[in-house]
Amino acid sequence: MVRIGIVGGTGYTGVELLRLLAQHEDAEVVAITSRAEAGRRVDALFPNLRGRYDLAFSEPDVELLAGCDLVFFATPHNVAMNLVPELLERGTRVVDLSADYRIRDAALWSDWYGEPHASPQLLDDAVYGLPEVNRQRIAGARLVACPGCYPTAIQLGFIPLLEAGLVDPAHLIASAASGASGAGRQAKVDNLLSEVSGSFKAYAAAGHRHLPEIEQGLADVSGGPVAVTFVPHLLPMVRGIHATLFARLGAPGAKSVEELHGLFTARYASEPFVDVLPVGMLPQTRTVKGANHCQLSLVVPQERDTVVVLSAIDNLVKGASGQAIQNMNIMLGLPEDRGLGQVGLLP
Amino acid sequence: MVRIGIVGGTGYTGVELLRLLAQHEDAEVVAITSRAEAGRRVDALFPNLRGRYDLAFSEPDVELLAGCDLVFFATPHNVAMNLVPELLERGTRVVDLSADYRIRDAALWSDWYGEPHASPQLLDDAVYGLPEVNRQRIAGARLVACPGCYPTAIQLGFIPLLEAGLVDPAHLIASAASGASGAGRQAKVDNLLSEVSGSFKAYAAAGHRHLPEIEQGLADVSGGPVAVTFVPHLLPMVRGIHATLFARLGAPGAKSVEELHGLFTARYASEPFVDVLPVGMLPQTRTVKGANHCQLSLVVPQERDTVVVLSAIDNLVKGASGQAIQNMNIMLGLPEDRGLGQVGLLP
Amino acid sequence: MVRIGIVGGTGYTGVELLRLLAQHEDAEVVAITSRAEAGRRVDALFPNLRGRYDLAFSEPDVELLAGCDLVFFATPHNVAMNLVPELLERGTRVVDLSADYRIRDAALWSDWYGEPHASPQLLDDAVYGLPEVNRQRIAGARLVACPGCYPTAIQLGFIPLLEAGLVDPAHLIASAASGASGAGRQAKVDNLLSEVSGSFKAYAAAGHRHLPEIEQGLADVSGGPVAVTFVPHLLPMVRGIHATLFARLGAPGAKSVEELHGLFTARYASEPFVDVLPVGMLPQTRTVKGANHCQLSLVVPQERDTVVVLSAIDNLVKGASGQAIQNMNIMLGLPEDRGLGQVGLLP
Amino acid sequence: MVRIGIVGGTGYTGVELLRLLAQHEDAEVVAITSRAEAGRRVDALFPNLRGRYDLAFSEPDVELLAGCDLVFFATPHNVAMNLVPELLERGTRVVDLSADYRIRDAALWSDWYGEPHASPQLLDDAVYGLPEVNRQRIAGARLVACPGCYPTAIQLGFIPLLEAGLVDPAHLIASAASGASGAGRQAKVDNLLSEVSGSFKAYAAAGHRHLPEIEQGLADVSGGPVAVTFVPHLLPMVRGIHATLFARLGAPGAKSVEELHGLFTARYASEPFVDVLPVGMLPQTRTVKGANHCQLSLVVPQERDTVVVLSAIDNLVKGASGQAIQNMNIMLGLPEDRGLGQVGLLP
Repeated sequence: MVRIGIVGGTGYTGVELLRLLAQHEDAEVVAITSRAEAGRRVDALFPNLRGRYDLAFSEPDVELLAGCDLVFFATPHNVAMNLVPELLERGTRVVDLSADYRIRDAALWSDWYGEPHASPQLLDDAVYGLPEVNRQRIAGARLVACPGCYPTAIQLGFIPLLEAGLVDPAHLIASAASGASGAGRQAKVDNLLSEVSGSFKAYAAAGHRHLPEIEQGLADVSGGPVAVTFVPHLLPMVRGIHATLFARLGAPGAKSVEELHGLFTARYASEPFVDVLPVGMLPQTRTVKGANHCQLSLVVPQERDTVVVLSAIDNLVKGASGQAIQNMNIMLGLPEDRGLGQVGLLP
Repeated sequence: MVRIGIVGGTGYTGVELLRLLAQHEDAEVVAITSRAEAGRRVDALFPNLRGRYDLAFSEPDVELLAGCDLVFFATPHNVAMNLVPELLERGTRVVDLSADYRIRDAALWSDWYGEPHASPQLLDDAVYGLPEVNRQRIAGARLVACPGCYPTAIQLGFIPLLEAGLVDPAHLIASAASGASGAGRQAKVDNLLSEVSGSFKAYAAAGHRHLPEIEQGLADVSGGPVAVTFVPHLLPMVRGIHATLFARLGAPGAKSVEELHGLFTARYASEPFVDVLPVGMLPQTRTVKGANHCQLSLVVPQERDTVVVLSAIDNLVKGASGQAIQNMNIMLGLPEDRGLGQVGLLP
Repeated sequence: MVRIGIVGGTGYTGVELLRLLAQHEDAEVVAITSRAEAGRRVDALFPNLRGRYDLAFSEPDVELLAGCDLVFFATPHNVAMNLVPELLERGTRVVDLSADYRIRDAALWSDWYGEPHASPQLLDDAVYGLPEVNRQRIAGARLVACPGCYPTAIQLGFIPLLEAGLVDPAHLIASAASGASGAGRQAKVDNLLSEVSGSFKAYAAAGHRHLPEIEQGLADVSGGPVAVTFVPHLLPMVRGIHATLFARLGAPGAKSVEELHGLFTARYASEPFVDVLPVGMLPQTRTVKGANHCQLSLVVPQERDTVVVLSAIDNLVKGASGQAIQNMNIMLGLPEDRGLGQVGLLP
Repeated sequence: MVRIGIVGGTGYTGVELLRLLAQHEDAEVVAITSRAEAGRRVDALFPNLRGRYDLAFSEPDVELLAGCDLVFFATPHNVAMNLVPELLERGTRVVDLSADYRIRDAALWSDWYGEPHASPQLLDDAVYGLPEVNRQRIAGARLVACPGCYPTAIQLGFIPLLEAGLVDPAHLIASAASGASGAGRQAKVDNLLSEVSGSFKAYAAAGHRHLPEIEQGLADVSGGPVAVTFVPHLLPMVRGIHATLFARLGAPGAKSVEELHGLFTARYASEPFVDVLPVGMLPQTRTVKGANHCQLSLVVPQERDTVVVLSAIDNLVKGASGQAIQNMNIMLGLPEDRGLGQVGLLP
C-alpha cells in the first residue's frame, strides 16, 4: 500500500481526494492536515466519509508528511512552494494541485500571483501533470504540478487542432463556465447560494490566473506563441466545467466536421479518460459528474471557417483530484485508471 | 383603457404578459385564448395572478380578438401567420412574440422553419420590434415582430461596434446561455429539472433558428453582410440570457476599453432600457431578473485585438413580454416605460 | 413624501426594502447606513437598483437618522435595541426587522439570544407587527417589531384554528423550510452554493430562536399556553418559506376540510395579503416570489383527526421587508397596500 | 457471473441500475428492454455509460428475459404484475422496483392504483425487500418487491421506536421531501425545471400511494395498526429524500435523546447501510448522494414529549436501485455490499 498524505484536506479538492482514494486498492491515506480543523475527525466535517476513514485532521507537520510515500497539496497557492523543497529532499514525492509549480517562468508567476516564488529552483524539475501530453515525463517525476480545472478542459479541446497546425494560434477564443465548487470552500459572500443560484455571469474577463497556464501549455504543443481570449463564467451549480472553444480554420470548407472528428479520435484513441463524442452529440457536464472523464465534441457551424470545440469535465475530478490520482498512478507505475472507475452521476 | 387580447396565454410569455400588464395603468386584458385550457380561470393555472384577473381562457376566436385594440401572439411559430391577416384587416394591431414575421425573406424563413410562410405578403409591412433600432417605424406599425430572446441580447451588444465599423463583421462570435424558461412550457423530457439542474451544455450549435434573425438585424446596422458563429447553451436556472460576444478590432490597441465604453454610453444614452455598466462591472442575469433591462459591459482582455461584450437580459421580459409591451407603448403613443417599472429581483 | 432611513442596508432585507420602496409613491429613502460600505453607491453593490437611487451608504449616525420620519432596522439582532431609544425620543418612528423587540419577556429574550437586553423599558411599548392580529395597535405605534419569517408563515397558518379552539394547543407541529436568503448575506461556509445546492437538511431542530416568538404569538390568540415542535429546514433555493403545520382535531371527522376552509376564508376575508386557496390547491413558494402575499391551504388527510395547514410566503417580502412596509403604511395612515402591488414572479 | 435483465431501462432507476452494476464484479447486464428506444445503444441515451456497456435496448421479450438469472423491473406499476408470473415459472428470479407487489392486500392495492391486480396469486410469495426487516425471507425469495423511496426513508426512521413500543402508533407524522428524479423521466409540465426550480411545495397531501405501503410495513413491526399523516413535498433538486418524522412519547422526559440514540444504534448496529449519526449531527441528502446509505438522527426538542427523527437517503439508490441490488446480493448469497461501495458525492 502506498502511504498517502494530504495537505489542506478541508477544501473541496481535499474531500474529493478522500472520496476517490477510499476506493483505491493500492493507496492508504495516513495523514491529512488542516490547521483550522486539527483534531477533528474527517468524517465529522465530511459525513459522506463515515465508515470509510478512521482519521482526524492533523496540524501540518513536515515529519508526518515526510513519512508518506506521496503527498498531495490540496491547498491555495503559496503553501506548496514553501513545503515541497524539504519533502522532496527527504524522498517524498509530491502532486501539487495548486498553481505553485504550473508556470515555468517565475517572473510570469509573480506577475499573476502578486508575490515572489518561494522555490523557483524547482520549476524546471516540476512536470506539468497533463497525462495526455506529458505521460512519459510524469512517470519519472518526483514533483507534478497538476493542471488547473479550466486549463485541463481548454487544453484538451485545442490540442489536436494546434498539433495539426489547422487553426490560427493567435486568435483562440475560450468561453468557459464553472460550477461554484471551483471557487473553493471559502467563506465569501460572492459564493453564497443566494448570490449565485438562479444567475449567470462572466467574471475575471480582463484576466484570469489560468490564462498564462493555458497559453504556456498550448504554446508547447503548437510550437510557437499562442494568444487566447479567455472569459470564465460562474454557473449556478456545484460541479462541472464546460468550455466552448472557437478557432479559425484556414478557409471556409477547409476541413469538414468529419475530418476534424477523425483527427480528434485518432489523437485520443489510447487515452483512457478523454472521450471524443460521435458527431452530433454534445457534451454535458452531468455525464461526467463525479467521473475522471473529459468529453469532447466538434462542430463547424454553417460549414464556415470557424471550428467550435465543446469540452466538459468535472472540475473536482479530471479538473483536480481525479487527475491528481491519475498522475499518482503514473508516477508509481500503477495502472493509470486504478481507483478512477467512477461512472458519471446521471441524473 | 386599451383593450388587449392574448393568443396562447398558457406559456411562459403569456403569463409574463399577464404579470406585467397587471401593473399597466392604461391597458386591460379582455381576452386570453388557449385551446387546451378554455374555460379555466387564468389564476387557477397561474396562482401568482390570484386577485389580479377575473378572467378565464377562451377558445381562440377571431371575433373575440378583433374586438381588441391590440393582440399579442404568445404562441409557437406557425400560429400568428395564419391569424394575423384577418386581424389587421379588421383594424386590430398586433405584436407577435413568435418568429413568424421576424425574417423578411420568406424563403429563408422556410429554410429554417421547415414549412412555407402562410402570409408572406405581410413580411414587408411587419416592423422588427427592437426599439433601439426601429423606434420610429414601430410607432407607425400595425404589425410588430418582437425579437427573439437571444437576438435581443446579442444585437444590443454588437450594434454600437458594427454601426461604428470598428470590428470585422465576417467573424463575430456569440457564446450565449439561456435559462430553461426559454424552451417554453412544453412537456419535454429534455427540459425536466432532473435533466437540466446541476448541468450545463451547448445545444443546437450546428444551427439555431435565431441565427438568421441575428444576422439580418446586424447586417441592417452594419450596412453589409455579417457572419456570426452562434453557440447557445442551456443554464440550470429559470430566467435569464447572458451573451458573451467576441469581435476582432482592427489591431491590438486600436481602441481602449474606455473609448469603447464611451461609444456604447453615447449610443444608448437616451435608451430607457439599455444600461451600459461602468468599466470593470460585469452584468449578471439576476440584476435584471423580472425587469425590462439589458445590461452591457465591455472588456478588452490583455489589451489585444479582441473586444468582449457581455450582455444580460431576462429572456421573458426584455427578451419577450416586456419588450412586447415596450413595443405596444410605442405603437399606441404611450410613455415607452409605462408598466415596465419593475426592479430586478435580487437576490 | 415620508422621509425614510434604513440602518444596515447591505443585507438582503435592506436591498429588498430598497427594491420595494423604489415603487412606493409616498416614501423616499434619504439615508441608508452601512459601516462597511460607507461612501459606496447603493447601485454599485446592488446593480438591480441602477437608475432608481442616487444614494450612497453612510456611516451609521443618529443625527442623520433622527432627521427621518421613519427608520427601518434591517440589521442583525443587538443593533436596534441600542439605537432605538434615542430615535424614539427625538420623534422618529421605527420599524425593526430584527428580533430585538419581538419577545415581550426580556429574560426569555436573553435566554435565546445570549446577552442582556439593552432597552427592556421599550418592550411594553413595542407592538408586534403582524397586521392580521395587531392592526389597531400598529396604527398607533411608534415602535413596531416586525415578525420573523418563520413566525409569519407559521402563525398565519395556526391562528384560525387556535382562535376557534379547534385543535390541541399543546401538541402543534411545524415542519418548515426556508430558502438560503433567510440566513442573510453573511460570509459563511454553510451558506455557500456548493454546500446548499442540490441538498436538503433540517437544522437547529433542537431549538431555533424563532420558537419563543412563535409560541408567544400563538399563546396570545389561543388564550393559553401552546407548545410547538418546530423543525426548520434549509432549501436549495434563494427565496421562500413553506410551512407544513400539523394539529390534532378533537376527533376523527370532527371537522371536514370544507368547514375548516370556511373558517379560514372568513378569518382572512378582509386581509389584503392573506390568500386562502380553494380546497385542493396547494401553495408553492414561487407563486408568492417577490410578492407580499401569504398563501394558505388546508388538508385533512384520510379524514382522520389531524389537520394539515400549508403556508407559503416570500421570506424577504411578507416575511421581512414587505411586511415592514405594510406596517409602515399602517403606522402612517397610508393605504395598507401602497407600494406592495408586486405580482409573484412565476416562473 | 450472474446474468441480469432489466425491464424498462430508460427511466432513472434503470440508468441507476446500470451505473451501479457497471461496478459489480459478479453481475453482468445481458438484456435491457425499452419499447420506445429498442435498437438504440444505452450509451447514446445515457452518455455517462460510454465505455461501460456495449449494449442496446431491446424490445421487451419473455424469451430474452427468461434467459437471465435475475430480472429487475424498473417500470411504472402495472408492467411487472403481467410479466412476472411467466418469468418465475421459468426459473428466473425477480426484483421488482415498482409498486406491483408491495401491498399484500390486493383490494387495497386496487383502491390506490385504480385497477385490478393482474397476479394476486403471487402477493403471498412476494417478499417486501427491506433488508433491515426481512433479510432472512429475502434470502430465500424468488420475487422481491423493492420498497418505495419514501417508504424506505420513513420506515427506517420509525422502526426502532415502534418495535420498542415507545410511541403512539396512531398519530405518527411524516413530513418528507423528494428531489424531482422521484417523479421519473416522464415528459410532464409539472416536472420541468422552470416549474420546480427555485420553489417548494407539498403535493398529494390528501393521499399519496406510498401511504398504504408505509402503514403496512410499520404495522408489521408495531404488532398492531398504525396511522401515519404523510405529507410529501417536491424539492428543487435532482436526488435525495429527507423525512422529518414526529412521534409522541408517553410523557415529557420519558426518554432522553441519548437513550433513544442508544436504541437506534443498537437496532442498526449490524446494518451495513443504515448509519445513525452522533447526537447533534443532522443528516443532509448530499452526504448520501449516489450512495446506498440511510443516515438517521434523533432530536427531542425542548425535552418535551415529541421525538423527531430525521432520515436521509438517495431516492435512486437506497430508495430504489441500490436497495434492489442489495436485495439481489442477498437473494444470490453474495456479500450484501457487493457493488455498493460508492461514497456520497459531496459537494
